[in-house]
Amino acid sequence: METGHDTVADWGEFGFIDNLRRRLPQASGALQLGVGDDAAWWRPALGNGVLTTTDMLVAGVHFDLAYTSAADLGHKALAVNLSDLAAMGSKPACAYLGLALPAHLKKAWLDEFIGAFLLLAKAHDLQLAGGDTVAAKELVISVTLNGLAPESEPLLRSGAALDDDIYVSGTIGDSFLGLQLLQKRLKSPTGNLTEVSFLQERHLRPVPRVELGEQLAASGVVSAMLDISDGVIADLGHLLTASGGLGAELDCQKIPLSEAGCQFVEAGLVSFSSLLAGGEDYELLFTAPQKAHDEIAEIASESRVALTKIGQINHQDTITIFENGIFKELKGRGGYDHFQN
Amino acid sequence: METGHDTVADWGEFGFIDNLRRRLPQASGALQLGVGDDAAWWRPALGNGVLTTTDMLVAGVHFDLAYTSAADLGHKALAVNLSDLAAMGSKPACAYLGLALPAHLKKAWLDEFIGAFLLLAKAHDLQLAGGDTVAAKELVISVTLNGLAPESEPLLRSGAALDDDIYVSGTIGDSFLGLQLLQKRLKSPTGNLTEVSFLQERHLRPVPRVELGEQLAASGVVSAMLDISDGVIADLGHLLTASGGLGAELDCQKIPLSEAGCQFVEAGLVSFSSLLAGGEDYELLFTAPQKAHDEIAEIASESRVALTKIGQINHQDTITIFENGIFKELKGRGGYDHFQN
Repeated sequence: METGHDTVADWGEFGFIDNLRRRLPQASGALQLGVGDDAAWWRPALGNGVLTTTDMLVAGVHFDLAYTSAADLGHKALAVNLSDLAAMGSKPACAYLGLALPAHLKKAWLDEFIGAFLLLAKAHDLQLAGGDTVAAKELVISVTLNGLAPESEPLLRSGAALDDDIYVSGTIGDSFLGLQLLQKRLKSPTGNLTEVSFLQERHLRPVPRVELGEQLAASGVVSAMLDISDGVIADLGHLLTASGGLGAELDCQKIPLSEAGCQFVEAGLVSFSSLLAGGEDYELLFTAPQKAHDEIAEIASESRVALTKIGQINHQDTITIFENGIFKELKGRGGYDHFQN
Repeated sequence: METGHDTVADWGEFGFIDNLRRRLPQASGALQLGVGDDAAWWRPALGNGVLTTTDMLVAGVHFDLAYTSAADLGHKALAVNLSDLAAMGSKPACAYLGLALPAHLKKAWLDEFIGAFLLLAKAHDLQLAGGDTVAAKELVISVTLNGLAPESEPLLRSGAALDDDIYVSGTIGDSFLGLQLLQKRLKSPTGNLTEVSFLQERHLRPVPRVELGEQLAASGVVSAMLDISDGVIADLGHLLTASGGLGAELDCQKIPLSEAGCQFVEAGLVSFSSLLAGGEDYELLFTAPQKAHDEIAEIASESRVALTKIGQINHQDTITIFENGIFKELKGRGGYDHFQN
């Protein structure tokens, strides 16, 4: 293939890995051996074992390069995996990055991607320990993380009990609104650019709730937890199914929206339920017995992340939502299915 | 999208995962929690830590569905990763499978793929512990494995010393010949169908040298090791570079070829050097001090895998090969670069 000197193809597989190795800090701490051999070697001080998560992101399915910068994508590819570890209460340790790269991709693009990936990794004391780089027609990113299981055992999605309170961290629906703005399917009702970019950032640069996840696990009061990737309702559905077919009652009034999010609902530009189905919030959704109320409030205050009680577990095998004075039963999964949409 | 009921798209993301979960054995032993939560939880009895490897395979780059069956691919996707763990002397433990699937892919195809993957996993006491399934235009398979580091420390590619002997397991070049046969670029000189299918199997169904790798690590006599994926010469080059810029002298006469392989060379259908550059042998290439000769012979006999001394480490910073009475210096890397070819 004839190209200039600025594409991934000019670099070649080994050129890219050599370049990457020069950018990486020396393997340190529990990581004995990082990128460059047949496998990475990690020697953790293991109390409770290893938690491992893996996620793939595909161009045109999970992101659109028209409005996603290389740095946004480098951040998000890691953030969504960190969010999975956070949902178990894990402390992240090692990352493994698989990249299927089109030959025409620019070196500069990849540099920026890796830069943002490493920046977020550093913020969480996570080391890029290995990976694989191959050629492909479309860009596919595969991230695997190994983290430490919390001493108090990981928080599963299967532990919710009758009458438990249901909580979410942060605010809901911002990522959905950010995506609609990026895709120019919605316009801001106020024209306030700070709010527009807040919502877009919430979609492009999700902040994984890693420390919060660790604190919630350490508290010992959380009965079940997952992160919201498919949408609040869909993920609550997963939690209820995993917990043995329980039901839930949500109070619409209590679902926490950002100020920017509120304005879209108040202006009638989006329905409330679309925010609950939108997905990619990367907030934590968890349950705890009612008596844990004060401890949850304390964790919220310490972690400086809002933790809002949005409803309660019941035995009805459905999710109902109290909205405008009436209970509505939510049918179906209501979330995002990569194959069906 | 309008389809029948036999494609991945009809299943949907959750349908596939539900189906997979039903096929998996219950998480057992050190695996506390497998597929179905935000992360898998593995609680190994850790002596020396964890080894992790990850590999991506892309349709049209790493395999051609025209001559690769679903079962071949399911086997090979895992085998090439097991080969990486073998090269460190690791005992495999947990697998994480990422699949980017075109919507038109048949359920039956995926069933067969998973079946072969799980069969090979079972043979190595490896549990499929997690993964991700997403939609894509082209088929991309991403496999990550966690294994146990050997008690005697992992075998790196960086430990070769001056005057060490260089060994390979099994025979070399079969996979290259098998690929040429599958692509109909070569015809068997004898027309012997058993030999043709032997060579094709060597390409489609590589046998990872897992137990051999563990035995070599446990012996304590191996100084450096890797698996041959890019070709003997290319991978020896990686080992020499990692070991501080040493050189090697190979004896062409000693490179072990299979009977089928010999016939192609003797018939003048392929050059010897193309077998050394061909790649995807998934044999182990390692170095050991000369005095370890008898121990290596014993391991070969115990493991029933031929281990052949093919040359020696020197200080010349090049690879020379003794062929037809003269030494030839090999220039360049001579292996396969996914971006350049």
